[in-house]
Amino acid sequence: MDVLADSPEPPSLEGRDPVADAMLPLSEHFKTVRGLSVELVSGLTDADCTVQSMPDASPSKWHLAHTSWFFEEFVLCGALGQSERFDPDFQYLFNSYYEAVGARHTRSERGLLTRPTLQNILDYRSHVDARMRAILDDVSRETELFDLITLGLHHEQQHQELLLTDILHLFSKNPLKPAFSDVATDAAPEATPAAAALSWSEFEDPGIVTVGHSGDGFAFDCEGPSHQVLLRPFALANRAVTNGEWIRFIEAGGYQSPRYWLSDGWACVQERGWTAPLYWEKTDQGWFSMTLQGWQPVDPARPVCHVSHYEADAFASWASEHLDGCDRARLPLETEWEYAARDNSVAGNLLDRASLRPKVQTGAGLTGLFGDVWEWTASPFTPYPGFRPADGAVGEYNGKFMSGQRVLRGGACTTPQGHIRPTYRNFFHPDKRWQFSGLRLARDL
Amino acid sequence: MDVLADSPEPPSLEGRDPVADAMLPLSEHFKTVRGLSVELVSGLTDADCTVQSMPDASPSKWHLAHTSWFFEEFVLCGALGQSERFDPDFQYLFNSYYEAVGARHTRSERGLLTRPTLQNILDYRSHVDARMRAILDDVSRETELFDLITLGLHHEQQHQELLLTDILHLFSKNPLKPAFSDVATDAAPEATPAAAALSWSEFEDPGIVTVGHSGDGFAFDCEGPSHQVLLRPFALANRAVTNGEWIRFIEAGGYQSPRYWLSDGWACVQERGWTAPLYWEKTDQGWFSMTLQGWQPVDPARPVCHVSHYEADAFASWASEHLDGCDRARLPLETEWEYAARDNSVAGNLLDRASLRPKVQTGAGLTGLFGDVWEWTASPFTPYPGFRPADGAVGEYNGKFMSGQRVLRGGACTTPQGHIRPTYRNFFHPDKRWQFSGLRLARDL
Amino acid sequence: MDVLADSPEPPSLEGRDPVADAMLPLSEHFKTVRGLSVELVSGLTDADCTVQSMPDASPSKWHLAHTSWFFEEFVLCGALGQSERFDPDFQYLFNSYYEAVGARHTRSERGLLTRPTLQNILDYRSHVDARMRAILDDVSRETELFDLITLGLHHEQQHQELLLTDILHLFSKNPLKPAFSDVATDAAPEATPAAAALSWSEFEDPGIVTVGHSGDGFAFDCEGPSHQVLLRPFALANRAVTNGEWIRFIEAGGYQSPRYWLSDGWACVQERGWTAPLYWEKTDQGWFSMTLQGWQPVDPARPVCHVSHYEADAFASWASEHLDGCDRARLPLETEWEYAARDNSVAGNLLDRASLRPKVQTGAGLTGLFGDVWEWTASPFTPYPGFRPADGAVGEYNGKFMSGQRVLRGGACTTPQGHIRPTYRNFFHPDKRWQFSGLRLARDL
Amino acid sequence: MDVLADSPEPPSLEGRDPVADAMLPLSEHFKTVRGLSVELVSGLTDADCTVQSMPDASPSKWHLAHTSWFFEEFVLCGALGQSERFDPDFQYLFNSYYEAVGARHTRSERGLLTRPTLQNILDYRSHVDARMRAILDDVSRETELFDLITLGLHHEQQHQELLLTDILHLFSKNPLKPAFSDVATDAAPEATPAAAALSWSEFEDPGIVTVGHSGDGFAFDCEGPSHQVLLRPFALANRAVTNGEWIRFIEAGGYQSPRYWLSDGWACVQERGWTAPLYWEKTDQGWFSMTLQGWQPVDPARPVCHVSHYEADAFASWASEHLDGCDRARLPLETEWEYAARDNSVAGNLLDRASLRPKVQTGAGLTGLFGDVWEWTASPFTPYPGFRPADGAVGEYNGKFMSGQRVLRGGACTTPQGHIRPTYRNFFHPDKRWQFSGLRLARDL
Repeated sequence: MDVLADSPEPPSLEGRDPVADAMLPLSEHFKTVRGLSVELVSGLTDADCTVQSMPDASPSKWHLAHTSWFFEEFVLCGALGQSERFDPDFQYLFNSYYEAVGARHTRSERGLLTRPTLQNILDYRSHVDARMRAILDDVSRETELFDLITLGLHHEQQHQELLLTDILHLFSKNPLKPAFSDVATDAAPEATPAAAALSWSEFEDPGIVTVGHSGDGFAFDCEGPSHQVLLRPFALANRAVTNGEWIRFIEAGGYQSPRYWLSDGWACVQERGWTAPLYWEKTDQGWFSMTLQGWQPVDPARPVCHVSHYEADAFASWASEHLDGCDRARLPLETEWEYAARDNSVAGNLLDRASLRPKVQTGAGLTGLFGDVWEWTASPFTPYPGFRPADGAVGEYNGKFMSGQRVLRGGACTTPQGHIRPTYRNFFHPDKRWQFSGLRLARDL
Repeated sequence: MDVLADSPEPPSLEGRDPVADAMLPLSEHFKTVRGLSVELVSGLTDADCTVQSMPDASPSKWHLAHTSWFFEEFVLCGALGQSERFDPDFQYLFNSYYEAVGARHTRSERGLLTRPTLQNILDYRSHVDARMRAILDDVSRETELFDLITLGLHHEQQHQELLLTDILHLFSKNPLKPAFSDVATDAAPEATPAAAALSWSEFEDPGIVTVGHSGDGFAFDCEGPSHQVLLRPFALANRAVTNGEWIRFIEAGGYQSPRYWLSDGWACVQERGWTAPLYWEKTDQGWFSMTLQGWQPVDPARPVCHVSHYEADAFASWASEHLDGCDRARLPLETEWEYAARDNSVAGNLLDRASLRPKVQTGAGLTGLFGDVWEWTASPFTPYPGFRPADGAVGEYNGKFMSGQRVLRGGACTTPQGHIRPTYRNFFHPDKRWQFSGLRLARDL
Repeated sequence: MDVLADSPEPPSLEGRDPVADAMLPLSEHFKTVRGLSVELVSGLTDADCTVQSMPDASPSKWHLAHTSWFFEEFVLCGALGQSERFDPDFQYLFNSYYEAVGARHTRSERGLLTRPTLQNILDYRSHVDARMRAILDDVSRETELFDLITLGLHHEQQHQELLLTDILHLFSKNPLKPAFSDVATDAAPEATPAAAALSWSEFEDPGIVTVGHSGDGFAFDCEGPSHQVLLRPFALANRAVTNGEWIRFIEAGGYQSPRYWLSDGWACVQERGWTAPLYWEKTDQGWFSMTLQGWQPVDPARPVCHVSHYEADAFASWASEHLDGCDRARLPLETEWEYAARDNSVAGNLLDRASLRPKVQTGAGLTGLFGDVWEWTASPFTPYPGFRPADGAVGEYNGKFMSGQRVLRGGACTTPQGHIRPTYRNFFHPDKRWQFSGLRLARDL
Repeated sequence: MDVLADSPEPPSLEGRDPVADAMLPLSEHFKTVRGLSVELVSGLTDADCTVQSMPDASPSKWHLAHTSWFFEEFVLCGALGQSERFDPDFQYLFNSYYEAVGARHTRSERGLLTRPTLQNILDYRSHVDARMRAILDDVSRETELFDLITLGLHHEQQHQELLLTDILHLFSKNPLKPAFSDVATDAAPEATPAAAALSWSEFEDPGIVTVGHSGDGFAFDCEGPSHQVLLRPFALANRAVTNGEWIRFIEAGGYQSPRYWLSDGWACVQERGWTAPLYWEKTDQGWFSMTLQGWQPVDPARPVCHVSHYEADAFASWASEHLDGCDRARLPLETEWEYAARDNSVAGNLLDRASLRPKVQTGAGLTGLFGDVWEWTASPFTPYPGFRPADGAVGEYNGKFMSGQRVLRGGACTTPQGHIRPTYRNFFHPDKRWQFSGLRLARDL
């Protein structure tokens, strides 16, 4: 199963940054991104890649196929007008939600597709890759085609993260608790460093600031237009909330006290019986949780992960009453987060097969803004002023999801290198927990 | 059944304004508001007042009792420390959602309470009224107790509107289509005036503006703190969208075209089979709808009513492509709406038992901002900067609902006189349609 | 509210038997049955008669109207060809399940009909009664019309029992626990007699026996044809299982032990969280339950009531292992029950407004076969050999329900006098508990 | 993947009969049955064997593992007291419904077990087989151990049929419509023979007959005790109802006419939108259906398959009115079917990898009683008189399912050779259609 045979050295994932990526020749960018997808499934079986563990999740095989379908549908057949398809059925099977492109297979039944096999899908990828390679060198920057292919690569990176997120959910439902990554856990809990003490970066008089994407480099449509907003004085915590702090919340009865919760959140807690983050379980040896490294003790020093917006919001309410120095704590606005992050280097614990878990945030000053865990903000996902979706099917990318979701910022340990930016807006419904989602507190000044 | 026996003249509902209300002696304000609740059910039977037609709705009897429970629980027993209750069971039966106050009857089972009877509830009201009258004259302005009682009266006005909203839903489920109001419809459709032609009020350079409640007079906690926001140039339509315009949307296939819809909205349309506003039905004689005046032809000139946020948003998307002069149409932000409305007189087609339906908006300039229909905005219901819920149980009033809901502005034909303000923020989940909800378009300039 | 004004003495309900009923002049039979329905609701409010507490139940008002609709639809308009109807809408509103007669109102929305009012329905009844009285004297025995009217009266008696059954369910959902009957409970628990000791009536060699209705007198179609079956030796318990015996089952962990339960029953127990019969609740003062006499202590001597077939079957399994003298206990076949009962007098604790609860069974020999509680049998409700449903709409009466239900025998304390027979086959799905259903054990010999 | 390497010739499946099987040496019987399970999955992928397409179905891998678990749990560890297990987790993962044996994995989540892999399961089978082979030669007939192992083999045969049934369901949900069997379809529709004309075998005076299993050879507990029943004169159709007859039912509006349907059946038809048997679809080229040979035209001459009891019952009602010679048609009682079948040779179109579809029934006299399609009877699945479940966990085998199900008789084209008997009682809930279930009409004489 070597679809990367022509790539003598596996692509290095470390230390890339988005601007540098943007400067790569397109063919090299393409090879790097496409190769990583296949590399991610190298330890998985056909069955692992086929099963869908809940309607929100998709099979790995589907992620592999759908990202290839993007290039076949929108680039090869769409922009370039080619008529040949690897398999005409794939048009129906691997469309995700592009209503404009035609009928598609029911989302909740993606896991029933035991055929095509994983090998068929890998063949499909090779076929699409070969046809793409044949045209990539002729694509000039600053053309619509260049932008479309670049969009396809960032789209694929999103699915790489989802693939990891979804496989963790699948494995969590297996009583055998298999590990995705056979890498030894980076350290025993007792050996990990302590998290930095909680402190606050204060922004005393931000006033009118500019947020949103502008200028060079790729961004999704929803990151613009760049525009001005009026910010009030605020402070942002130096690091993400830790498992240890979350355990205090649990032990203080946080999951049993409606006073801390949004009304919809409290209904959700009761209906689903939540008493801890997703994947956590209390055992005789204390809290354990399912991770991509398998069943592991919960390390109090690491950032809490797999919490919903409802839980993050409730934690902030609790913390503002009970956690030292957290008076008037709340979740940050996405504009506050972006303002605070915009001058920070886009580096952190991003996708790296040797880890795949959030790491302890130990640095001085604002640390861990990028990587480790997506940070829930207080901001609903709504259009920036003047936002217009792109024309055509790719215009369905983000705009139509601007209802009922909250913005997350900063990327996680499963976000591919080169995929995150200060302006990047991720979004999920507030009850979702299977993403690598945590939080960082903010305060009014 | 005359609990207003001591009130020789029924209270006049016309032409009141909130500042004036605020200036009334408290005892008079109390009598007026409390009297209206009982007046509203004067044409209803015990059974009408008992049945709950869906989990979102409450029985009239429940509205009558719960608003009285507010005064008994928070004022008489709470603030004043009285220990006697009309009936100890009522504490359990008529708490709504105040988690802090103790156990309460399951919301979805309110309609099973055939006992206590309507007469029992009216007796309960009289009892509470008598005890309140005994203390009202001693309550000074600018005391916590004064504010609490005033809150109770505004709370009761909200329930007056809900009572009308909920009884319409109940009657709509009855094949006999009974009218709540036996008043003759104000005019035959052919005789109603035409709506004003669509035009735009332009706000070319608003810049930094102040929104939110400040100063004198009552407001709910979520209307403040008053704060500055940065607005961009925009225009607001002179009137609400009409039934006639909505019929064009229907006939253009608006309910069949996913391109206009938010993703959650489109899922909702398909799941619930929506093809028109709630209560509409196409007959051999054209569109009819259920109203508080019974089964009536849809009048093309009147504002459209009983549409969800999803529908309002889809209409705006469609209008921006297909309706003359509506290029770049969208729903207004709540801050834009408030800015545009703040200098308008708070007058319009508010609760008046002789009408109870939206009326044709015919005026020049911005018209119908208050009354007729609540206007969906683009704004999610989130806290204003620096918002803190009040302490204690009444702090549960608004803050905990700040998730997944959208703001509506301006009041409707069912909103009591004296209850609406430019800063008033109503809110509902985006799929709800049983409120008197419509829309007014805005545009970027 | 006296629709029985022309009936100087209220009809006596005691001591009637079905053969005697059948001998009554039809007009007298009609007056007696129709009068009882109205008498039953004399203590209820309009709201009590309107609300539907679950989809299986119907409002009292609906029972009153539907039974009148039967005479209007099938007799006056159907058989007699009259064209006038009291209200044309009632044809739609009060059809139950007769698919052949046309569209009908959704069953689960019966409780939304606050109009027509109870008084309207009583007027409807008076109207139908007057028109029926006008023709009753001319109807000869042994005509189809006579049989149809007689069917209508037995149909009404079924609804009288359902009305009581359904009103108990409604009142049970009210935290105030209102009593339907204000009659003082017949005795304090400590004062009631003890139940007869458990013993067995043995039928040592029944062989080929004839079961099913034949000969004179009314019977439902499903009670025939009369036919032969081969019975094996069996014994039948002298009395129904008591509350005291049921408490032993509970205390022995019966609701926690899958070994006693049918697979579907066990799934039901777990899904619905059953731990005792319907309406039972354990309090500081011991077991209490909701009855038509309100909230009452559970009397160990009385027959257990409001158990499902699943529970009855599990009890028998448990009893066969753990109850003295109950080796090889099981539920009786309906044919065994009928064979054992056929020579017993049809008398017992049937509908009597002074009681409305099962009474202690104290007699010698087989006792309590009729009245007290319906007795679940082991027999699925299937057609007797050669069964054919009647032609036309009334043919929908029983045959189409012959799937997934179990037969109950003997009537209950809510079954009208004159309505029960040894051949009578009642039937419900095995998970239903809101009927007055109990059990009597049988054994193989 | 050759776990049968020690079996030089694949076991022949043809022409076996149960008595002969019973006479085989146990070790040979064991090898034959165990070998077939593995042979059945030889064309399937790991993913095919892992996915669960609905809660009623199980993955192939689960069938392979659970049948091995039976021998490990009940024979090796249970009866023989061995303590070693292949993998202790398998005890939890592969228990099906034996409550007495301990906790088990949730049925509806069987499809989430991508690990253990198919190869792990095949290793498990080899391991269990080796340990069983070591003891089989020492097991004497007429011992409890012999009977237990024989039960295990019949249990495995049931799962062989379910494996085929479930894989068809899985493949039917795949838009690619893969074939399980790559064998060419036995003949083009136009080339298949016509079905025998409908005629009736009359049983004019059966009287008291003996039914149920007695004597030698294996039978499940529910097939006994053998006992007498009284049968009335009846006739049984010479062959099963055909697809062509079913198409007439469809075209006559059978699925739109409530008059033919049981009440629960009609509710099911409407709720699930049934308009034809499961797997049927009307195309431009006429009716097609999904089969184990893939997507095939519906052959009018073959027996109809994949119909529920509700549909079978409705068809009989329709046929009794509209099909020539079918006056008073109905489904047979299981006792009638057994009486008619008992002297027929147990031969027919049973499991044979070269076919796997029902074949046209062409013979004279009663034909196709065994094989082709399971035949729904009118009989609820209830215990025979005197039935007692076996002690211990295997006693959970059949008795606890005696509620809400109907009996099917005769086996299907997916039933293993040697597994069917005249007394064999299969059973399913009346709404199930994914089994190979059809029907044969009966009539009263």
